Amino acid sequence: MTAPNRNTLWADVLVDELVAGGVDAACLSPGSRSTPLTVAFAEHPEVETFSHLDERASAFFALGRARQTGTPTPVVCTSGTAAANFHPAVLEASESRVPFLALTADRPPELRDSGANQTADQVKLYGDAVRWYRELPEPEADDRKLRSLRVTAARALTEATGTRPGPVHLNVPFRKPLEPRPVEGDVPPDLAERAPLAVEGRDGPFVATTQGHKQTDAATVDRLADALTAADRGLLVCGPADAPTPAREAVADLAAATGFPVLADPLSGHRFGSSRDGVMVCGGYDSYLDDPDWPDPDVVVRFGASPTSKNLRKYLAETDARQFVVDPAGGWREAEFTATDLVCADPTWLASVLASAVDDPSTAYRDRFESAEQTYWDIVEHARADRLFEGGVVGKVAEHCPAGSTLFISNSMPVRDLDRFGQPRPAPVRVFGNRGVSGIDGVISTGLGAGSATDTPLVLVTGDLAYYHDMNGLLALARCGVDATIVLIDNDGGGIFHKLPIEEFDPPFTGQFKTPHGLDFSPTADLYGLDFRQVPDQAAFVEAFEDSLDSGGTQVLSVELDSERSHRFREQLHDRVQTAIHDA
Amino acid sequence: MTAPNRNTLWADVLVDELVAGGVDAACLSPGSRSTPLTVAFAEHPEVETFSHLDERASAFFALGRARQTGTPTPVVCTSGTAAANFHPAVLEASESRVPFLALTADRPPELRDSGANQTADQVKLYGDAVRWYRELPEPEADDRKLRSLRVTAARALTEATGTRPGPVHLNVPFRKPLEPRPVEGDVPPDLAERAPLAVEGRDGPFVATTQGHKQTDAATVDRLADALTAADRGLLVCGPADAPTPAREAVADLAAATGFPVLADPLSGHRFGSSRDGVMVCGGYDSYLDDPDWPDPDVVVRFGASPTSKNLRKYLAETDARQFVVDPAGGWREAEFTATDLVCADPTWLASVLASAVDDPSTAYRDRFESAEQTYWDIVEHARADRLFEGGVVGKVAEHCPAGSTLFISNSMPVRDLDRFGQPRPAPVRVFGNRGVSGIDGVISTGLGAGSATDTPLVLVTGDLAYYHDMNGLLALARCGVDATIVLIDNDGGGIFHKLPIEEFDPPFTGQFKTPHGLDFSPTADLYGLDFRQVPDQAAFVEAFEDSLDSGGTQVLSVELDSERSHRFREQLHDRVQTAIHDA
Repeated sequence: MTAPNRNTLWADVLVDELVAGGVDAACLSPGSRSTPLTVAFAEHPEVETFSHLDERASAFFALGRARQTGTPTPVVCTSGTAAANFHPAVLEASESRVPFLALTADRPPELRDSGANQTADQVKLYGDAVRWYRELPEPEADDRKLRSLRVTAARALTEATGTRPGPVHLNVPFRKPLEPRPVEGDVPPDLAERAPLAVEGRDGPFVATTQGHKQTDAATVDRLADALTAADRGLLVCGPADAPTPAREAVADLAAATGFPVLADPLSGHRFGSSRDGVMVCGGYDSYLDDPDWPDPDVVVRFGASPTSKNLRKYLAETDARQFVVDPAGGWREAEFTATDLVCADPTWLASVLASAVDDPSTAYRDRFESAEQTYWDIVEHARADRLFEGGVVGKVAEHCPAGSTLFISNSMPVRDLDRFGQPRPAPVRVFGNRGVSGIDGVISTGLGAGSATDTPLVLVTGDLAYYHDMNGLLALARCGVDATIVLIDNDGGGIFHKLPIEEFDPPFTGQFKTPHGLDFSPTADLYGLDFRQVPDQAAFVEAFEDSLDSGGTQVLSVELDSERSHRFREQLHDRVQTAIHDA
Repeated sequence: MTAPNRNTLWADVLVDELVAGGVDAACLSPGSRSTPLTVAFAEHPEVETFSHLDERASAFFALGRARQTGTPTPVVCTSGTAAANFHPAVLEASESRVPFLALTADRPPELRDSGANQTADQVKLYGDAVRWYRELPEPEADDRKLRSLRVTAARALTEATGTRPGPVHLNVPFRKPLEPRPVEGDVPPDLAERAPLAVEGRDGPFVATTQGHKQTDAATVDRLADALTAADRGLLVCGPADAPTPAREAVADLAAATGFPVLADPLSGHRFGSSRDGVMVCGGYDSYLDDPDWPDPDVVVRFGASPTSKNLRKYLAETDARQFVVDPAGGWREAEFTATDLVCADPTWLASVLASAVDDPSTAYRDRFESAEQTYWDIVEHARADRLFEGGVVGKVAEHCPAGSTLFISNSMPVRDLDRFGQPRPAPVRVFGNRGVSGIDGVISTGLGAGSATDTPLVLVTGDLAYYHDMNGLLALARCGVDATIVLIDNDGGGIFHKLPIEEFDPPFTGQFKTPHGLDFSPTADLYGLDFRQVPDQAAFVEAFEDSLDSGGTQVLSVELDSERSHRFREQLHDRVQTAIHDA
C-alpha cells in the first residue's frame, strides 16, 4: 500500500481492514471533509458503493442492507449536520439490534468550538445509542497508530455484530489536504518496509474474532425441560428478529417435542417459511386472544423482541403463567412486566437442547389454536373476497410474495395489518420492518437497502405518510440500481389515529392527527423514473402485483382507501371472528 | 383552567406559560404520545400552529421562524426516531445562536428500555448542543409540581433567548390516557381554588425575566477608543448574525467616528440596509483582499460570527494587527487564532460608546477600499451584462429584492456567490442563512419558516442538492400558508466541489463529489402546487423574478447552469479584478 499523504494512507488502512473484516459495501454522501474516506471506499476493488445525497436516507439504506446481510454497511458523511441526519437510523439500529457503522468525518481537534465553518460537536453525537464510540486519533504514518487503527476497525465490526448487535460510531478527524495529493515527507518511503503489519495488514483480518454463544449448564436445561413437560397449555412466542430466532429447524423441533403452538410475529422469520407436520404456526391470534373465555397458558417461552400484536401482549400481561424470556444478550424486552424467568442463552441452542429433553407433547391446547386459526382464516378469506380494504391488500401481498423474496413492511398500520392478515405460509419470505423504534421515517430507504443485497424480488408496503416522509429515498432506485414493487396504501393521512381515542375529539383530530395532506403522489413517477399505477380493486391489485414481480424496474401500486372505513371493517371482522370462535 | 385529566392539565399549563412568555406559534407533527401537547397548542387561541409531517422539516421551519422573530417556535413530536429528526436543526440552532425549543413526548419512565414499542433513550438526546435540558416530572395535579412546571417553561424560554441564544430540550413523559378524556379523581375539582397560582398562573409571565447586557468599565472603553484613534488602517468586520449586530445606527456611528470601512458579510444585516454619508460599506472584499500588495490593517474590530469570505478570513489570519473580537457571550468565534483581544460586551452598546469616544477619522485606508469597491462592482456589472452565470443570478436577486423583504440563502455556493456578487444597497433586506453549521439540509424549511412570520415577500435561493435534500419542506407552502419566490440554481450536482482540489481526481470526482443526479424538478410543481418555470437567460430571469414578487402563490424559477463554467468564469473575473485593482 503506497499513499501520497497521511490522510490517504489512514483512510486506505481503515477501509482495508473493514474489508478484511467482511465489509463489502459502503453508503457515501458527497462532502469535502470526508474526502479521504470516500476516495478509499470508492477505489477499493472489493467495495460496492452506494451514493446518497440525503444522509438520513443513506443511513436507513445501510440499516436495511444490514438487516438482510447481518454485516454493517458503513455510512460516510462530512462534518456538521450531515452526521445528525444519521441519528434516526442509529436509534433504530440500536433498538432493533442491527449492525451499523457510522464514519463521520470531522474537523481536526484544534478547529472545534472555534467558530470554524461547518463544525459542530460530534463527540458522542449519538449518546448511549451506540454500542461503541471511538474518536480516532489524528492521521499519522506511524507504526503503532496504524496498528491501533486496524484494531479499531476490527473492534468496530465486532462491537457492531456482537451478541447484541447495533450501531458503532467512529468520529474521524482530518486536516487538509483531503484529496490524494502527494505531500512531501508525510509518508516515509520505507514505511511499508519498516512497518509491514501496520501498512499491509494480514492475509485476512488483523484480529480474527471468534464470537462465543451463551449456553446454560445441563441442570438448568433439565429444569426448563421439566417445566415445559409439565405444561398443559404451553406457548412458543416468536417476536421480531431479522434472522429467524431461534433458527427455523430448532423452533420446529421444539414445537414438535412440546406440542406448543408457535405464535409467529410477521417479523419473526417464522410466519412465512416455518412449516412441518405436527407444528402449528399461528398468525391470527390478534383476533381471538382477547376473547375473555380464551384459556390462559401455563407456560410461555418467548424469543425475539416484543410482539407486534397488542392483543397478544395484553394476553401475556394478564396471565399468571410461567414466562421464560430467552435473550442471548440478557435484554429485558418484556414491557408487560409479568415474565418469571429471563434465560440469557443462545435461542437456537436452547430450543434444540430443550427439544431433545422434552418428549411429552400435550396437544389439546394446540388443537384449540388450530381450530381458531382455521375459523379465522376462513372468515378473512371470505371477507377479503367481497371488498377492498387495507388489511385485504396486505394479506394479498403476503400470499403472493414469491418464495425467497424480501418483503419490507412499514410501521403504523401496514405491519399491524400484516400481523392480522398475513396468513402463515410454508414459502420462505424474508420480512423486515423497522420495529425497533417503530418510526415512520426511512421506510423507503430501509426497504431499498434490504433489496440492494439480493437478486430476488423486493416488495415494499407503505402508507402515504411514510411514503411522503422518505420520498427522497426513491432516488436510490436509479442511483443504487435497486428495483422494487412498492405497494402504496394511500388513505390521505394517519389512518392509525382512527384506532386511538383521540378520534373522538375533532378538532383537533382531523387537523393535527389524521392530517390529510391531499398529496397526489403520481408525479413521483417522473421525478424518480418509476411506474406509478392506480389500482382500483382487489382483482386488479393482484394482477398488477404479479405483473410487477415479473417486470424489471420499479412499480408503485397505489391503492386509494378510506382509512376510517378500513378501520370500521377491521372492527366488524374482529367481532365476526369473536362470535364464530366463541360459538365454536 | 379546568382540565379533564392530569395530562391535559399538565400540557395546558405548560403551553399557557409558554404563551405568557411570548410564544405565539408552534410546529406540530402527528403522533400519539404527544397528544396532550398537540391538543394544548392547537386549542390555545393565541397560538398559530404549523402542522408538519416530517419532523426534520418541522424543526428547520421553527428555526427559520425564530431567525425572523427572535422568539422560539416550539416543535412538538412523538416519542422515538421522530425526536432524532430534530437533531440537524438543533445543531444549527446551537451554532448560529437561534432560540429553539424542542418538546419531545416520551413514554413514562417505567417503559424505557423495557422492549416497549416506539421507545428510545431520549434523555439528553442532543447532548451538549442544547443550552438546557430538562426531563419533566410525571404529570400530576399537584400545586408544587405545577408551579415548577410554570417556572420550567419560563426558564426554558430564558435559556433559549439568553446572551447566547440556542436550543433547549424538554423531554415530556406521558402515561395514558393521552386524549382529553375525563379521568375520575385525576384533577381535584377544588384544585384551582386551592392552588390558583399553579393552575391559572399570573397575568403575564409567572416569572418576568429581565435580561441584562454586559458593559465594560469606562477605563476599558477609553483604552479601546485610544487604540482605535491611534490606528491608521482600521477595519470593522461584521460577520453573520440574524439581527444586525451591532445595530445599524451604532455601526454607522462607529464607522463615521473612526473612518474605518465596514466589511459587511451578506448575513450580517449590514450589507443591505446600512447606509450613511461618509460610511463605506464594502461587499467585494473577497475579490481583492488576496492581492499580495493590499495593505494590512493595524486594528480590526470584529462583530458577529466568522465571516463567509475565505479570503477575508485568510487576510485576517495573516495580519499582525490588533484584533478585537466583540462577543457578548464570550464566544471565541475566530478560527484563525490571531485575535489579540476578546471583549465580552454588548456589541451595540460598545459600538455606541466607542463612537462617542473616538473622533479622529483617518480616511486614507477607507478611500482605498472605496476605490477598490468602485472598480470591483464596475467589473461585475459589466461581466454580468454579457452572460448568465451563477454569481450573476445571485447578484440580480440581491439587487431586486424589495426593501423589507426576506432573503434566505442556501449554503454551499449560493451564500458564497451572495458574498461576492451581492452589491451593498441602502434598502433593508433581511438576509438569513444556516451559517452556523453550514449544512445543505433543511434549507427550504428554514426559508419558509422565516417567511411564515412576515407578510413581506420571501425569496429563497438554493442549489439543486439543497432543493432535493429538503424537498419535503415544500409541503409547508400549502399546509402552512407561506408563499415564496424560489430561485433554483440547478447545476445538476455539487458545483462547489469544482472549487476544491479533489476536482483533479476523477474518478472518484464525478461519481462521489460532483454527483450529477439528472433530476428534473419540474414535477414538484404538481406535487406541491407551485409554479415551476425554466428561465433561459438573465433578462428573462429578472423579469420572471419581478413577476413572481408581484404574484401570489409560489414560483420556482429554475436556472440551469453549468457549475464548471460558472466556476471558471468566477476565476476569470477574479483575475480581472486583481489586475484592475493592482494597476489602479
